[in-house]
Amino acid sequence: MEAGKEELILDILKHEKPYFHDFSTSELADFLNDYPEYCNRVIEHLEPHRAVKTLKFLDLKLQIRLIQTLPSDVVATLIQNMHFDDRTALLSELTSETVKRLVLFLPHEDRIETLALLGYPEDSVGRLMNPDYIEVKEHYTVQDALNKIRKLGRNIENINFIYIIDEREKLLDDINLKELLIVSPDKKLSEMMDKKYIALHVTDDQEHATSVFRKNNRAVLPVVDDNGILLGIVTIDDMLRIQSEEDTEDIQKIGGTEALDEPYMSTSFRDLIKKRAPWLIILFLGEMLTASAMSFFEDEIAKAVILALFIPLIISSGGNSGSQASTLIIRAMALGEITFEDWWRVMKREIMSGLVLGGMLGIIGFLRIAVWSSFTHVYGDHYMLVGLTVGITLLGVVLWGTLCGSMLPLLLKKIGADPATSSAPFVATLVDVTGLVIYFVAASLLLRGTLL
Amino acid sequence: MEAGKEELILDILKHEKPYFHDFSTSELADFLNDYPEYCNRVIEHLEPHRAVKTLKFLDLKLQIRLIQTLPSDVVATLIQNMHFDDRTALLSELTSETVKRLVLFLPHEDRIETLALLGYPEDSVGRLMNPDYIEVKEHYTVQDALNKIRKLGRNIENINFIYIIDEREKLLDDINLKELLIVSPDKKLSEMMDKKYIALHVTDDQEHATSVFRKNNRAVLPVVDDNGILLGIVTIDDMLRIQSEEDTEDIQKIGGTEALDEPYMSTSFRDLIKKRAPWLIILFLGEMLTASAMSFFEDEIAKAVILALFIPLIISSGGNSGSQASTLIIRAMALGEITFEDWWRVMKREIMSGLVLGGMLGIIGFLRIAVWSSFTHVYGDHYMLVGLTVGITLLGVVLWGTLCGSMLPLLLKKIGADPATSSAPFVATLVDVTGLVIYFVAASLLLRGTLL
Repeated sequence: MEAGKEELILDILKHEKPYFHDFSTSELADFLNDYPEYCNRVIEHLEPHRAVKTLKFLDLKLQIRLIQTLPSDVVATLIQNMHFDDRTALLSELTSETVKRLVLFLPHEDRIETLALLGYPEDSVGRLMNPDYIEVKEHYTVQDALNKIRKLGRNIENINFIYIIDEREKLLDDINLKELLIVSPDKKLSEMMDKKYIALHVTDDQEHATSVFRKNNRAVLPVVDDNGILLGIVTIDDMLRIQSEEDTEDIQKIGGTEALDEPYMSTSFRDLIKKRAPWLIILFLGEMLTASAMSFFEDEIAKAVILALFIPLIISSGGNSGSQASTLIIRAMALGEITFEDWWRVMKREIMSGLVLGGMLGIIGFLRIAVWSSFTHVYGDHYMLVGLTVGITLLGVVLWGTLCGSMLPLLLKKIGADPATSSAPFVATLVDVTGLVIYFVAASLLLRGTLL
Repeated sequence: MEAGKEELILDILKHEKPYFHDFSTSELADFLNDYPEYCNRVIEHLEPHRAVKTLKFLDLKLQIRLIQTLPSDVVATLIQNMHFDDRTALLSELTSETVKRLVLFLPHEDRIETLALLGYPEDSVGRLMNPDYIEVKEHYTVQDALNKIRKLGRNIENINFIYIIDEREKLLDDINLKELLIVSPDKKLSEMMDKKYIALHVTDDQEHATSVFRKNNRAVLPVVDDNGILLGIVTIDDMLRIQSEEDTEDIQKIGGTEALDEPYMSTSFRDLIKKRAPWLIILFLGEMLTASAMSFFEDEIAKAVILALFIPLIISSGGNSGSQASTLIIRAMALGEITFEDWWRVMKREIMSGLVLGGMLGIIGFLRIAVWSSFTHVYGDHYMLVGLTVGITLLGVVLWGTLCGSMLPLLLKKIGADPATSSAPFVATLVDVTGLVIYFVAASLLLRGTLL
């Protein structure tokens, strides 16, 4: 936010009774994320619905701290005024002790609903549901429906669609509010039904839900259970948040870190290390195999030190091509463009890519050694053979990197792991050891009798 | 989609006059993305509004091919029935020749609007605008507004909000449709105004727009120009698509590829190579510096071959820690959590992280050599000194990797480049050369008089 606004808020806070009417809730939230020390004071002085909206945009850690430190009556008002989906999101981060205490603040009916939502799996659509929607019966007229909206509308987050259910609460159809407004009020809803609607299942994965929203251009979708009973609605603004969170997680994993769960700046130093150290150490232990692999070839290196010069070049080329392939495939899988069933089509493409890319690098590598040798004697008498060894190794290593990078995410998905775990550093480490073996085997074959 | 549906569609296609009423537009689009050869037949047989919806969910390349191969009258109907924002997205991918031809199919007024939208910068909010919204005047009653909705509503994509403008079309306020439905029809709109609204500017970056939507929980936002004149609206479903596209681009760049522009599977092999080869070659040329750096230390390697064994371990640890830091910072910047102004706070954190993480790896590296040496003689008499060299180098290299990885994205942003360009492979390459220098300098200092 602009610096000016920050100063204005700081100035207002000096008053006995601070008054924040001139600021939007997102401006206040921005301010509080930067100055968490003022959280309690600001939240306590906002009207309940503004306090709830502001709370919603605070970092989760701040929200939790607030709920734990504000006076009970303020917390009670906050919790009562929150939308179901936001309340579920907040409560699911708290200890079960705190949840029990907070749920007591809710009216009986809300209490049951809230606990039910908390019963769905963590990444399921159920956790995002909002039971505030308008349901109507087939025999209603448009006017009946409009009256119901007039009566209940104020407490409802999204009334783009109303839902027609039967006597057993089974979802029959959805009707766009727009349609209601442009037809005659006497029309029966049953005449407007086309029985075509898209619904999410309550146990659907949240990531799946984002792709349904993306493909169907809807701002809100109904959620049903196994029997088609309407349980609630999910709104697209939650999807934007989830898409962003899922992508953040993927990007962090691709970079070789555990997902941070919180913004970088609000993650404590301790947590930052805890998320980074394990992978770094695992990769380090894996990479130790390179030292072991190389100790097998110590004699060769002693005889032809020249071979050592190209080690970084060779292993990094394998790592780079593997990192390219793995990120392309991880992303394509996250977007649902590729599934495990496509593995053979992917493999064919990547073998071809590996050959072409490896061929290019191989030729460049060979030429570099050959051309350089006409100016200096640094690569010795057998520079053509050295060039050939490096060139062929590059072809092999890039092909192998591309293949590992593309197949690993598919394989991880197949065994139920997160494909993004096959991070760039992970693939690189895997390829490094093999790359060295390829290099020294090629060298033994090509340089035997000359350098070795 | 389920295999059964695919077969059903294929079966229907065999009929003289295929009839697709049982399928949703997203099912049809899924089918056509898999069987592009049937595109023309299916699209021609759909009612216009269903054809347009289906078209919208096809891969862009397919859309373009369709527009270029369908009979003119079908194209005319399609183009006329598209929403402005979808039409702008499609037209902006076509050659100016094709655009000129297609624009002729539009009614005069639409033609002007469409060309105006195409005049805004490619990644600006202007390109996403939809001029179909309901505008009202301050003096209207609620009933007046509802009548206007009833009259114009059918052609309007989103009527969640209506907009109050003055006689110069300046945006004064927005009113939630919900509010209109729950108050008395006689109420004046002026009594409902709070003059608080959030608007996007027409030249705002699309990525910025996603963060405004994310922070403000809105399904639709108005777009204004420098004078506050209302130009159109932008809907959240476009945001979900843009967020996903931007993240795809970032992930691909982080992996060391140019952004693909199209799904992996629909990218031609030629394009796939064109997107991957340049970076791979640039990185390869950069990495050649490692060979040059190492040739300076050829004598040291010849004297102490043991040093060569740890080269992959050392350079990859620098690369891994750099890759962790760069992806964390790139993502935090994309989400607006960090800006260039935070560089000093980031640097302090990353120096600390680098010291702790480097310290851990250094100790593990040292211990591994020390412990191993009590079982074998592979590291020679001076194994303690070798262990110390490797340990200290690891500390230095990880610190350096973390620092480069975190500062490079900030620096790139500062000079106006895309931070995601500081990909994991790029940082790794940068760190490799320096890592080798750190290693051999440490070795010269610590091993002089013993191994060297």
